[in-house]
Amino acid sequence: MADNKRSERLVAMTKTLLDQPATIFSLGHFTQTLGAAKSTVSEDLTYLREVFSALDLGRIETFPGVAGGVRYLPLLSQEGILALVEELCLKLRSPQRVLPGGFLYMTDIIFSPQWSARLGDVFASLFYERAPEAVITVETKGIPLALMTARALGLPLVTIRHDSRVTEGPAVSVTYLSGSDRRMSNMSLPRRALPTGARVILIDDFMRAGGTVRGMMDLLAEFQAQVVGTGVLVETARPVEKVVQEYISLVVLEQVDEVQKEVLLAPNPRLAK
Amino acid sequence: MADNKRSERLVAMTKTLLDQPATIFSLGHFTQTLGAAKSTVSEDLTYLREVFSALDLGRIETFPGVAGGVRYLPLLSQEGILALVEELCLKLRSPQRVLPGGFLYMTDIIFSPQWSARLGDVFASLFYERAPEAVITVETKGIPLALMTARALGLPLVTIRHDSRVTEGPAVSVTYLSGSDRRMSNMSLPRRALPTGARVILIDDFMRAGGTVRGMMDLLAEFQAQVVGTGVLVETARPVEKVVQEYISLVVLEQVDEVQKEVLLAPNPRLAK
Repeated sequence: MADNKRSERLVAMTKTLLDQPATIFSLGHFTQTLGAAKSTVSEDLTYLREVFSALDLGRIETFPGVAGGVRYLPLLSQEGILALVEELCLKLRSPQRVLPGGFLYMTDIIFSPQWSARLGDVFASLFYERAPEAVITVETKGIPLALMTARALGLPLVTIRHDSRVTEGPAVSVTYLSGSDRRMSNMSLPRRALPTGARVILIDDFMRAGGTVRGMMDLLAEFQAQVVGTGVLVETARPVEKVVQEYISLVVLEQVDEVQKEVLLAPNPRLAK
Repeated sequence: MADNKRSERLVAMTKTLLDQPATIFSLGHFTQTLGAAKSTVSEDLTYLREVFSALDLGRIETFPGVAGGVRYLPLLSQEGILALVEELCLKLRSPQRVLPGGFLYMTDIIFSPQWSARLGDVFASLFYERAPEAVITVETKGIPLALMTARALGLPLVTIRHDSRVTEGPAVSVTYLSGSDRRMSNMSLPRRALPTGARVILIDDFMRAGGTVRGMMDLLAEFQAQVVGTGVLVETARPVEKVVQEYISLVVLEQVDEVQKEVLLAPNPRLAK
């Protein structure tokens, strides 16, 4: 019976921690909800931390002291990241993904909750040490990845829109040169969406020349934001020279051969370093 | 030591099940990853099902037989749904949310990973018995809610775009009358995004007259989709007559008083029935 009580607590704690990654729960939270003594809760959490570490389930961090607590971070090891990106590349190489015009169909993966959640954990693992305060993306296809990254890091997601909406109050806008269709576009963010001077990471699904990320950076400069990291799912190998320097992609796309229905891509070699 | 082994298995199982809601895992999956006998895994899962039920952590379903398995559904009780929607209403009533023009600022909540995850569980709870095969939304603000609903139900998310993108192959388009800005807009979905005849649910953030949902239904008719449910986060009390009949909102917005900075809204009374 005592064992069952302990098992029950461990299961309930695991559920609470996984439901809200990166959120710090006080010991008091668990003594109240589980009706257990502080020392018992503390022992349970130490045990949980060890199990998560031993089985590579992510990281459980405990903070000692009066203001102590615990949180779960769904961080992957480098091997875990590489294995996941390899799996993604296999999926992306399917000839059925070649679209007229030599484009690559990725929308199903980007909008898959399972894939976006796993890829969000990857971006969280790459950037969490930089202590970001918000995740930024631009509509539309970057949203699932950015949302899941924000979820893994326990941060708000801020989404830049292409037109300023009347329904969101005063907004800042910039124009930028979009790489994919080679034309000037507009980006806009409501003033109230982001506090001044925040540390942010940028997440997007695709980068060719980097014009969109460049535009995001210009817009965020108006908020005095500090961009501490930029992650994109797929970048094209060409142009080699991008208009942004500091970024990391998970997959590098060499070529889509429309006639042979062949997709040449690979995990970004920088991930293995 | 034997107790610790059991605790370890229970924690690892909980993690696996929560990471991929609605996905069925075979007993064999756990015998392999945990190195335990089938009967042991089976006992553990029965215990886990009871704990989840007793502590109201969501539902664990076990399927007996050779093709047997287990899955986790993050379903809320009616009380759980009502408590969450009450909490949302409290947050939405803040005078600081009143925008020029009498609009209500909700973007921060919609794009919050914590809120969208919890609200996704609500929509999943309302619709899972209708056995949907995909979740459909329209860009942009419906995406986080719809993604999290799809996550809770283990389904793909299909996002309708406002312009047909060259990068996604042949697409079907419809025009519709948007309620909020009273003008004709365009909606488009690539042919390959949804198989013919699928059972789908529609999720969106806001409904005034219902023109957008009507447009979605017209577009989905071209895919012979069966719309088995429609959920919106907030609907306006007026117009009383919407252009769609079958839908459920979580919150009914009576009025936004721009001068008094007052927001009149309440949980949809239909949720309590």
